[in-house]
Amino acid sequence: MTQTDLTHRFLADFHEVARIGATEHQGVERQAATDEDRQTRDWFVAFARERGWRVDIDGIGNVFATVELVPDAPAVLTGSHLDSQPRAGRFDGAYGVLASLHAAAEVERRVRAGELTARNNLVVVDWFNEEGSRFAPSIMGSSVHAGLMDREEILAVRDLAGTSVRDALTAIGYLGDAAGPRELAAYAEIHIEQGRILEREGIEIGAVDSSWYTQKLDIEVLGEQSHTGATAMEDRRDALVGASRVTLLVRDICTEFPPGTLVSSVGQMTVEPNSPIVVNSRVHLVADLRANDPAIVREARDRLMARIARVAEEERLDIAANDFDIRPNRYFPQEGIALQERVAGDLGLSIRRMQTMAGHDSVAMNTITPSVMMFVPSVDGVSHCEREFTTDDDMVRGVSMLTGVLAELVAGALDGVAYPGTAPEDAR
Amino acid sequence: MTQTDLTHRFLADFHEVARIGATEHQGVERQAATDEDRQTRDWFVAFARERGWRVDIDGIGNVFATVELVPDAPAVLTGSHLDSQPRAGRFDGAYGVLASLHAAAEVERRVRAGELTARNNLVVVDWFNEEGSRFAPSIMGSSVHAGLMDREEILAVRDLAGTSVRDALTAIGYLGDAAGPRELAAYAEIHIEQGRILEREGIEIGAVDSSWYTQKLDIEVLGEQSHTGATAMEDRRDALVGASRVTLLVRDICTEFPPGTLVSSVGQMTVEPNSPIVVNSRVHLVADLRANDPAIVREARDRLMARIARVAEEERLDIAANDFDIRPNRYFPQEGIALQERVAGDLGLSIRRMQTMAGHDSVAMNTITPSVMMFVPSVDGVSHCEREFTTDDDMVRGVSMLTGVLAELVAGALDGVAYPGTAPEDAR
Repeated sequence: MTQTDLTHRFLADFHEVARIGATEHQGVERQAATDEDRQTRDWFVAFARERGWRVDIDGIGNVFATVELVPDAPAVLTGSHLDSQPRAGRFDGAYGVLASLHAAAEVERRVRAGELTARNNLVVVDWFNEEGSRFAPSIMGSSVHAGLMDREEILAVRDLAGTSVRDALTAIGYLGDAAGPRELAAYAEIHIEQGRILEREGIEIGAVDSSWYTQKLDIEVLGEQSHTGATAMEDRRDALVGASRVTLLVRDICTEFPPGTLVSSVGQMTVEPNSPIVVNSRVHLVADLRANDPAIVREARDRLMARIARVAEEERLDIAANDFDIRPNRYFPQEGIALQERVAGDLGLSIRRMQTMAGHDSVAMNTITPSVMMFVPSVDGVSHCEREFTTDDDMVRGVSMLTGVLAELVAGALDGVAYPGTAPEDAR
Repeated sequence: MTQTDLTHRFLADFHEVARIGATEHQGVERQAATDEDRQTRDWFVAFARERGWRVDIDGIGNVFATVELVPDAPAVLTGSHLDSQPRAGRFDGAYGVLASLHAAAEVERRVRAGELTARNNLVVVDWFNEEGSRFAPSIMGSSVHAGLMDREEILAVRDLAGTSVRDALTAIGYLGDAAGPRELAAYAEIHIEQGRILEREGIEIGAVDSSWYTQKLDIEVLGEQSHTGATAMEDRRDALVGASRVTLLVRDICTEFPPGTLVSSVGQMTVEPNSPIVVNSRVHLVADLRANDPAIVREARDRLMARIARVAEEERLDIAANDFDIRPNRYFPQEGIALQERVAGDLGLSIRRMQTMAGHDSVAMNTITPSVMMFVPSVDGVSHCEREFTTDDDMVRGVSMLTGVLAELVAGALDGVAYPGTAPEDAR
């Protein structure tokens, strides 16, 4: 197969999958374990079976497609996720899965043609529910696989309509009992950057060396339901007023730290009883705090807790704020970064090291196997929206990059490397 | 029937109906055209049919029970609504319907026994969707009956799940084709005050002379969806931040006017896409402004519009704010107030004139027939919540009061009186 054929087939498949759950403004909506998610999974399974790859589904809905190259050898795992946020872009996750399928097909061709000697097998994965929009928290499938979350607890998680993960996966036919690869040699993932650094610097590939420290705050504001017309202002205990003040506190805390070092926001807010002429009694919020430096997140969190307590007192509300989903900085192995730089050099691609502010399946996988995480540029840095965009040329360069990395990994480039990686300062 | 029998039967029925849609903290949830609303309607119909009263359902789901006393004579209409807010109190609306049924039964007894000479018939009504929580706006059934809203437009209104009023009424079997009473002599309604004035002053009955000027603002905040982790703070256009600022502006505007003259709040807020790790792109809010003096509402509204435009500019959002559901002051006829004072005097009940800040079916009905509106005390003034409470004694006094008023109205006390009433200053 020529490079032109590979390019052509990858792009045709990418744009075909983007039609599943397509929204009117060129985005997609395929939240975890919905029928749209099922359709992309069916497409993934068909792609694998056409090539004679074995398909296994595990007990949390991850789908593995195995390209057997060396009987009983460890596996190089590669993939991302096909689920999406509501009214999301068509690149986040899906790009990485499609790139992995096509890169794996090309590596298999090279091995079968005798151009490459394999020491490991190759497995492509579609991780369940990376996004966490329908079922919280995010990065479920890979976290369960890595042993960071308990499978039974996760299967019992419910969406806002009361449906459990177990029932939703059963309903779409993707709750299996396979175990996934028995032994791993390495994990590789490619993803859109979702930020502006590569675009601003005109660089083609980002080699991710670490992830930011992140945490969420689960905040419940309790007031008292009353009539918006008949209740005197001084008698009200309005939960939505409290929640609005908290939302602004969370946004404004960033200005107290050096520019760009902290991002924070309230993404989810549920209002009860939410009727035009009723003062609300309960609002549930989820706040998200992220920084590279854990001390900044902790300081911001402490200041917020003190101010939230003040809001509760001033508005005569009960506000409970609890830490959850704390994710420490994670470091990818230096050997994987060096491998990326070598492959990029061979392909004539520009590359730089960078951090990820967003969470990814690779961050979970890096806790159990040496992992390699690559970015391609995002136009305007926008993501989690229909306007998310990456050019065909950038996507194709990423497929070449991933193909080169997978070829090295299958040949054993990271076999025996220590994981997780360490912080550069610890390594010194 | 003795007064003790009447009291006993009224209280037994009131507390029986309070079991339909009961919540765990002694409230009820019976939003319009739900199955719980159907159950209260079925109870109402059974009460009427047991007494041989004719039951008619009109084309917007209002239920009329006719006590024919004088063939072809005009009707005195009395009632309220059996629907409720979410997690609401058991008194709002239901008290007025139950009081009307029992008062009507007693008036019928007096007429049949020759103790009272009737010039008018008597009809008890359960108005559809007074609350407006599931289907907006509120006071639907009586407003359509009074010609203030268009029936076809209202039947097409949809709830947040996309169900139309027409389909919801059809589903519970309460979309009819009757016309309701052919000619009206008067309308009478009794309701809990939902405020603290009667309780504070130790007065048993409130004679409502007018309603406050009210308006709503329909506010849509549009930003841009993006990733809460990967998007720089300065690149965000966060609709929830804008909506939070608007919510606080609406609450704080009250402090700029004399205490107690203006109440304002945001009751409804819908957030999209509402995912923990997505910056929200769209928030829809409904703000509610009420004052006795229309100039205060208009001034508050103008100041809010200017400040909302500033929020839009500062946060780089598009915010559209539109006036809707403007309800002018309405004045009940002075003859009806005088009638109430006379009846209260006969019964030895204390009474005072007062305004209503909340909307009621009587306000709509007063535009087509002379209407009489009465309040009984609310403990702590709380309403639209499970803690809403009125004592049995206060309820029973109200039933006696309504019975006395209905007896006078059936005898022709307000026949030929001009409506709607006029403001006291206009009358001078």
